[in-house]
Amino acid sequence: MSSLPTFADVQAAARRLDGIVLRTPLLENARVNEMLGGRLFIKAECLQRTGSFKLRGAYNFLASMSEAERKKGVVGWSSGNHAQGLAEAARLLGIKATIVMPADAPALKVANTRASGAEIVLYDRVKDSREEIGQDIAQKTGATIVPPYDHPWILTGQGTAGLEIVEQAKALGVTLDAVAAPCSGGGLSTGIGLAVKGLSPTTTVHAGEPAGFDDLARSLAAGTKQTNAKLSGSICDALLAPTPGDVTFALALKVLGPGLVVSDDEVLDAMEVAFREFKLVVEPGGAVALAAALTGKLPVKGRTVAVVCSGGNVDHATFMRALGRRTA
Amino acid sequence: MSSLPTFADVQAAARRLDGIVLRTPLLENARVNEMLGGRLFIKAECLQRTGSFKLRGAYNFLASMSEAERKKGVVGWSSGNHAQGLAEAARLLGIKATIVMPADAPALKVANTRASGAEIVLYDRVKDSREEIGQDIAQKTGATIVPPYDHPWILTGQGTAGLEIVEQAKALGVTLDAVAAPCSGGGLSTGIGLAVKGLSPTTTVHAGEPAGFDDLARSLAAGTKQTNAKLSGSICDALLAPTPGDVTFALALKVLGPGLVVSDDEVLDAMEVAFREFKLVVEPGGAVALAAALTGKLPVKGRTVAVVCSGGNVDHATFMRALGRRTA
Repeated sequence: MSSLPTFADVQAAARRLDGIVLRTPLLENARVNEMLGGRLFIKAECLQRTGSFKLRGAYNFLASMSEAERKKGVVGWSSGNHAQGLAEAARLLGIKATIVMPADAPALKVANTRASGAEIVLYDRVKDSREEIGQDIAQKTGATIVPPYDHPWILTGQGTAGLEIVEQAKALGVTLDAVAAPCSGGGLSTGIGLAVKGLSPTTTVHAGEPAGFDDLARSLAAGTKQTNAKLSGSICDALLAPTPGDVTFALALKVLGPGLVVSDDEVLDAMEVAFREFKLVVEPGGAVALAAALTGKLPVKGRTVAVVCSGGNVDHATFMRALGRRTA
Repeated sequence: MSSLPTFADVQAAARRLDGIVLRTPLLENARVNEMLGGRLFIKAECLQRTGSFKLRGAYNFLASMSEAERKKGVVGWSSGNHAQGLAEAARLLGIKATIVMPADAPALKVANTRASGAEIVLYDRVKDSREEIGQDIAQKTGATIVPPYDHPWILTGQGTAGLEIVEQAKALGVTLDAVAAPCSGGGLSTGIGLAVKGLSPTTTVHAGEPAGFDDLARSLAAGTKQTNAKLSGSICDALLAPTPGDVTFALALKVLGPGLVVSDDEVLDAMEVAFREFKLVVEPGGAVALAAALTGKLPVKGRTVAVVCSGGNVDHATFMRALGRRTA
């Protein structure tokens, strides 16, 4: 692991993304702060172009490719948000993209990916290997595989959100005790860890995962990579990666504190709070770090904490299910 | 009308609000732009502290009061968002606030206003005069009346959102052809008109209203103040003021172009687009300018337009009604 990305790589990614990604707001709410007895900030990456943070890593990857590579196109696999981010990055840079998506991905995510001009190949999440399908396409066309998380260019791109969090907190005169982000394969959380630790070494950084899909939390506790027993079955459709990436796990051991694990019900409650108090549409997988803060699993009392709400690409029915948990 | 507020008053308000209000993001969406054949920006004031733009005007008003006046407290009347903005401004400045609210205001708005520490007095929207109730309280306590829109300090505070829109557009290298904002009594739209015209004289500024409550649109067309036939009956609970204010109408004649009028169904459709594409929770009254842009009443084709989504304080049931208009 001599080639682990560095803080300087995140800074370089930020320069590539300048003017491309939205500097999403860092929001807080007086009532929620009072309820928690501390200060809770939300980094609203659900407002990012394509509806999630994924454009950051995808654009940074494509912008780092050579001209010759770009001409042959890119291929990626994703449960949805990486697909949309990659398709949009490819559109912005004029690169042909082929996206391998699970057949049970939210219809909205499939439709939106297609709308960016990408070619879509659907697969069965239980029977097929998306890696094999993608690698087959890459071999036949010469396209470059753009992995969803396990690559320095991807995770340093995602990490630019962490730079912004610390800078925005500093502008408010605030030093953060902790930052937490949702985690599937670990690209966002480790990228943010790298960024936050570079600017604010005393801040702890944590990855949030859904119960049953807490491979990173268990891997961090064990010191070796662990795998989830199930491949599907959480409302958090964006967070079902079976095991941490090689690069992301090596980095996680250096920059992340203990993992945070929340239930689907806690996630739905967090989505309702995001709606009611923050006026944000957050998808289930995007709300796990917020859920950890609201339930006290990530303590906010007497502290200052920022959580990333990483995406907002949620189907109408799922969002209504969250709202239905409380009617005011 | 020798005392009409000026562009310099909006700039002074911006200095008072610096560090108090959130500089809300200016969002755009590639799919929506493609659908409309132009560039549409949303100024997301639903993300503002208290869930609407109203903190701007209320805080600017209270910060402009004398120390002696502040000690006697403030009183205001509102269908909800001004109430929350005023209550929060009073809390931030340590001023006692009494708020007169309609008994049929959304439960969420009443609860949130109470949570800021304000005293609530409820009235019947059809039978009672909220002005008389408020004036009676002011007379008995010496409290200063903080009107919802018809005052230079209020409208110049709201106008700071317009300064931000033009500055944010400029940072993107964009000159706006038109800006539109929701309108009840005209504080937001005329404040924004003053701000936008001061920075970008060729940009037209428009007020959006719900059908049946289009008093400003008809007043602008007639050149004299017109009154709505009904006092209630639109889903846009925040936009039911019966007639333009004196100060706001005098200013509207100088800074606003023709009014925009949308139906409740068009508003619900706009809320669904805000949810699906922009990941924003927008209340009905907050979505009228967006509705005008999406329906072509405010043309976007071949142009660059910004609309203010002015608030997000919507009940769960109403939001679900908007989502139910399309399931994806």
